[in-house]
Amino acid sequence: MLNVLMHEGTYRRIADRLVAFGDAIRPIILRNDGQFEAIGEGVLAAPARLDVGYGTPDVWFTPLASLFVETLLKADTLDWFQSSAAGTEHPILQAIGGKAEIYTSSHAQSDAIAEWVLWAGLDWFQRGGDRRAAQVRKDWKRIEFTEIGDTNWLIVGFGAIGRASAKRLRALGARVTGVRRTVGPDPNADAMVQPDDLHDCLPAADAVLLCCPLTEETEEMANHDFFQAMKPGAFFANVGRGKLVDEAALLSALDTGQVAHAALDVVAVEPLPENNPIWSHPRITLTSHLAADTMGAARRTDDIFLSNLERFVAQQPLMGVVARSEFAVSPNSS
Amino acid sequence: MLNVLMHEGTYRRIADRLVAFGDAIRPIILRNDGQFEAIGEGVLAAPARLDVGYGTPDVWFTPLASLFVETLLKADTLDWFQSSAAGTEHPILQAIGGKAEIYTSSHAQSDAIAEWVLWAGLDWFQRGGDRRAAQVRKDWKRIEFTEIGDTNWLIVGFGAIGRASAKRLRALGARVTGVRRTVGPDPNADAMVQPDDLHDCLPAADAVLLCCPLTEETEEMANHDFFQAMKPGAFFANVGRGKLVDEAALLSALDTGQVAHAALDVVAVEPLPENNPIWSHPRITLTSHLAADTMGAARRTDDIFLSNLERFVAQQPLMGVVARSEFAVSPNSS
Repeated sequence: MLNVLMHEGTYRRIADRLVAFGDAIRPIILRNDGQFEAIGEGVLAAPARLDVGYGTPDVWFTPLASLFVETLLKADTLDWFQSSAAGTEHPILQAIGGKAEIYTSSHAQSDAIAEWVLWAGLDWFQRGGDRRAAQVRKDWKRIEFTEIGDTNWLIVGFGAIGRASAKRLRALGARVTGVRRTVGPDPNADAMVQPDDLHDCLPAADAVLLCCPLTEETEEMANHDFFQAMKPGAFFANVGRGKLVDEAALLSALDTGQVAHAALDVVAVEPLPENNPIWSHPRITLTSHLAADTMGAARRTDDIFLSNLERFVAQQPLMGVVARSEFAVSPNSS
Repeated sequence: MLNVLMHEGTYRRIADRLVAFGDAIRPIILRNDGQFEAIGEGVLAAPARLDVGYGTPDVWFTPLASLFVETLLKADTLDWFQSSAAGTEHPILQAIGGKAEIYTSSHAQSDAIAEWVLWAGLDWFQRGGDRRAAQVRKDWKRIEFTEIGDTNWLIVGFGAIGRASAKRLRALGARVTGVRRTVGPDPNADAMVQPDDLHDCLPAADAVLLCCPLTEETEEMANHDFFQAMKPGAFFANVGRGKLVDEAALLSALDTGQVAHAALDVVAVEPLPENNPIWSHPRITLTSHLAADTMGAARRTDDIFLSNLERFVAQQPLMGVVARSEFAVSPNSS
């Protein structure tokens, strides 16, 4: 019987589907009150033996996150951890990845994030801010807008999120150039280039979207030179990681109008401190790292977890396994 | 040499392409200062003989609109009028249609309007209002949203605008039921129904979009019974005509929350009077009949006009001819 740790909210969503596993698994839930409970057995102490952990936004973005992580890291063993996220560079995920024998990630959030990209892009090109201001002023005023189908997008990072965004933008008629290290065309892009060509492509883009992983090479890639190379008055969006952007350089490019508007779902320091000028900059649309926070993403991630759980129980290879080389050995795992 | 009347703004956009017509045409422009000018000849009186008129948003939504229309209606003849709009029920277009030997309409605005529909739909389902309020409060707060790909749309009127909207919504994963009089399936819809089935389909829709023409049958079709039949908490949008909606019934359905939000690009009386509660209702997104107001729509309409102008000069049949039966004989045309 495998001890499977998850948050109460996650359990409630998939309880019906866990029944099929019968005695093969023993779900242990971290309740909202901070207690552990084995289903059918009642409250228990933090489990020392864990076979499986399933981490989702249900717990990451609550005060229980640290207890959840501590439980995973302190357990005697952790055979497999399923993450709801695609990225692995967060220190917490690095620590879990260093501990777990097998770590699997999920791209189930990509479709949700791609919808956020469309929302942000349409609102900018359709001048949503001007429309809302006109409504407040009761001003019956025509406000000409640009069809997103008439725009060129440069998508930096062409993994699951980049492709999901590109697919939607192209369905609306936009032209997409993708940037990734792998050489060769992609069915979701009109053109693909490599990172060395990025700066040459910036002047032609009406919109630049960052959705690449955070690495030593990509940290603060969107810096002063990057913004100056963009087409004056273009749109910038970031759904990758906040530290991809030199935020002082972005603010300065927005102040001069070189970048007309930025839509950010991620910032370098989260939660964003109250005194940070990003909050109230008139040319920034900021959301709180929520672009993946949909029932659809939760449902797709649950599907992946349950499918992997079947495989795990049957001792078959799992889907979405992250290479061990992606994880520095964590000090907590020793 | 054909006298071709258009607004100065329209002429400026297509002047280069009119050169190819040489002496076959004589562009007469209505200038922003209210004077008429024949290109290459200078200012002249209102032209008595008109062969062709081309009406676009450049003139409709300016104080010059009445002079433009009067000139068309007072001319001794008007062989052909090209409208930038799909609809013909506006009294001005009815009058022009009663006068012109041939009247052609354009569906070039559909793509722009379909983008407006996506903008309004994504902003509602992604809770754009809550996001903007959280940013103003500097509140780093997760706000779960619904992917538009997870929603059911009922599109009432499945002409060019309905199809263009459906195509985009389905590319994002949404399910679309279309309502039109013509029996049979449509490649852009998951299901097609007839007007008699409309009320039966309302309860299943997360979003209801009106984009049908205004006729005696459709006037105030969205009334109290219509809104009560909708799924509680669903989204309503109107890009057709304002008079499709019983606005008192809509306001009342919004007040109770039966309809969660309405996005309107059209209202019964335009411009909307300042004291109308639609302006400031917290559950209404209002734009000023601008959903077609894009450079893309202008470019596509110009393409249609120029293509038709070639045909007209060559005495070939035009594209987009509206049947004479669509126009009541106008008193001005006698």
